[in-house]
Amino acid sequence: MAKIVILGAGVMGSALAVTAASHAQNQVTLAGSPLDNDIIDCIHQQHFHPALKVDIAANIIGIKESDLTAQHLRDADIIVIGVSSPGVPWAVGKIRGGESTARCIAMVTKGLQASDQPGAPPLTYADALEKQLPREKLLGIGGPCIARELALGMPTFVTFSADDIALARDIRTHFQTDYYRVAVHPDFVAMEACAALKNFYCIGVSAMLGAWEIEGQHAKNPVAALFNQAVLEMDILARWIQQATDNNEAQLRRENWRNVAFDLPGMGDLHVTVGGGRNSRLGTLLGRGQTLKQIVEGPMSGVTVEGLDTGKQLLPGYKAAVENGSLQQNELPLTHAILNSIAHDSPFTFEFSRYSSG
Amino acid sequence: MAKIVILGAGVMGSALAVTAASHAQNQVTLAGSPLDNDIIDCIHQQHFHPALKVDIAANIIGIKESDLTAQHLRDADIIVIGVSSPGVPWAVGKIRGGESTARCIAMVTKGLQASDQPGAPPLTYADALEKQLPREKLLGIGGPCIARELALGMPTFVTFSADDIALARDIRTHFQTDYYRVAVHPDFVAMEACAALKNFYCIGVSAMLGAWEIEGQHAKNPVAALFNQAVLEMDILARWIQQATDNNEAQLRRENWRNVAFDLPGMGDLHVTVGGGRNSRLGTLLGRGQTLKQIVEGPMSGVTVEGLDTGKQLLPGYKAAVENGSLQQNELPLTHAILNSIAHDSPFTFEFSRYSSG
Repeated sequence: MAKIVILGAGVMGSALAVTAASHAQNQVTLAGSPLDNDIIDCIHQQHFHPALKVDIAANIIGIKESDLTAQHLRDADIIVIGVSSPGVPWAVGKIRGGESTARCIAMVTKGLQASDQPGAPPLTYADALEKQLPREKLLGIGGPCIARELALGMPTFVTFSADDIALARDIRTHFQTDYYRVAVHPDFVAMEACAALKNFYCIGVSAMLGAWEIEGQHAKNPVAALFNQAVLEMDILARWIQQATDNNEAQLRRENWRNVAFDLPGMGDLHVTVGGGRNSRLGTLLGRGQTLKQIVEGPMSGVTVEGLDTGKQLLPGYKAAVENGSLQQNELPLTHAILNSIAHDSPFTFEFSRYSSG
Repeated sequence: MAKIVILGAGVMGSALAVTAASHAQNQVTLAGSPLDNDIIDCIHQQHFHPALKVDIAANIIGIKESDLTAQHLRDADIIVIGVSSPGVPWAVGKIRGGESTARCIAMVTKGLQASDQPGAPPLTYADALEKQLPREKLLGIGGPCIARELALGMPTFVTFSADDIALARDIRTHFQTDYYRVAVHPDFVAMEACAALKNFYCIGVSAMLGAWEIEGQHAKNPVAALFNQAVLEMDILARWIQQATDNNEAQLRRENWRNVAFDLPGMGDLHVTVGGGRNSRLGTLLGRGQTLKQIVEGPMSGVTVEGLDTGKQLLPGYKAAVENGSLQQNELPLTHAILNSIAHDSPFTFEFSRYSSG
């Protein structure tokens, strides 16, 4: 039995609550952020999540932010940070304020943060929050997982990753169900990097959905070619980001494990991300020839696009790394093309003719 | 300048002819198999390919099987075997009969052939034809490449592979265009294995397109989960198939190269194969609960499904390898599920609940 507190009642946090609560022995509290009051009201009144559009079982305790006490957090065995990126400071504040003694803090939220040190790779949230959250308790969740599908019991494979793989295996026992199947991986930072980067690369792959058409259908060869390219480049960037905080211990841990870019957190999650969601929509519009400015001031005005934010955080470190030779631009044509659109507000172009390998 | 003879005027052979002929210095002959007479007539009369539905440039010399002489093959610098699997003996017979001195024989046709030795892994066509074609001249082509899209100039990345990578680089110069971008790889057998296996795994991944539905749309998590799983298992089987004919030289060649399953011939080609074509259609119907027999006697009567043939050739060697421990069944749940449907004519089921890794 575990007491699980999920911070953030958006779609992903709530879907994980549904999954965790299907273990009868868990006690699951779904705590809304200051933005989630209407959701919690709906759960109280109708046992229904208005964004996920699924029933919320009565054994999930929904509470509003105003009712979330330090005691809730102190009592929790496992805390899940389930907010979107802008909500991370709120969630971290609650955990610190509650003097949590939880044995695990699981991060669903993913992103990169440009380093303070000029020219250094960006940091994953896990590293950026190092001084605020106890690193040895942090766990990342990656892999293909559309929230609504999870809440409806559609099967998937995901990965739990932590510096201490024993922690990942332990926490898995409280979440894994017949349909939510959990692999574990010790390469925590690379997994967090991939989970952020897949949104970024989704923009470039999805551009191919908009750029090449045959009789009203998108051509499939360009999408597959850049899907493959995205995974190769994600692997390079994940290893580069990893270097920012790498040490001997981490290197030992990941020996004999496959690079995560070529597994569920990279290839698998990118597969599900392309062709659905906001990152893909932005990419498709870019591929049709619109500029970023036209899109974010037009059809996607007011919409948060995580891959775009990731790209912005990536940009300064990437430029420095290409200049000082720690990244080779000719190995990263897709990264370069996406960042070029972001930096110069130019239409997305991938020049196939300039690239072949070997 | 190269004299290129393409054997087989089906969609793939003809699309490659279009690509090769866009190099003005090439002299391209498209030789129909005994089944292609109508296609060659159409090319002669209308400069149009009736199956590809694209114009055929006048610099492509279309000839019927009856007009194909030993001289054509003797004069060729590069011969492309562009037939479907049943046409391979015809193509090989022509090449041998013509006493070809071509410097390269490129194999577009892919498949596996069960070994004569009980319990041994199946052979790729390249190995199965070892005694009939000069191995050092063989070149394989893999990667995402829908024929019609290629013929229409939609961009893609593919891989040319040969035991001698210098051959692959040489031949690339005669085929690569601004939109047909060619990588090279020295791991010829593994590439041929992946090119056959991707059709087989496509059946299992596509079953997820038929098995899980939300409001009339297929769920995406299960597809992505099994896409990822398919690539992992393809890597295992490609390396197993490779062992059948492996030697020190081959091992040295592939050092420092990425396993091809995680590149264009595996992951990339599987991406394009799922969601279009006959393998995917068969898989989707299996996923809806029909048995193989019902499908091949019903909606897909008379249709050649390459992935199904590949599965049948895989089956005896796979069973023996699992029994003698050279393959671990628990690492191959998707392989097992597809083969189970083929061997027992049972509906396709992938039991997510029985599988998680690490």
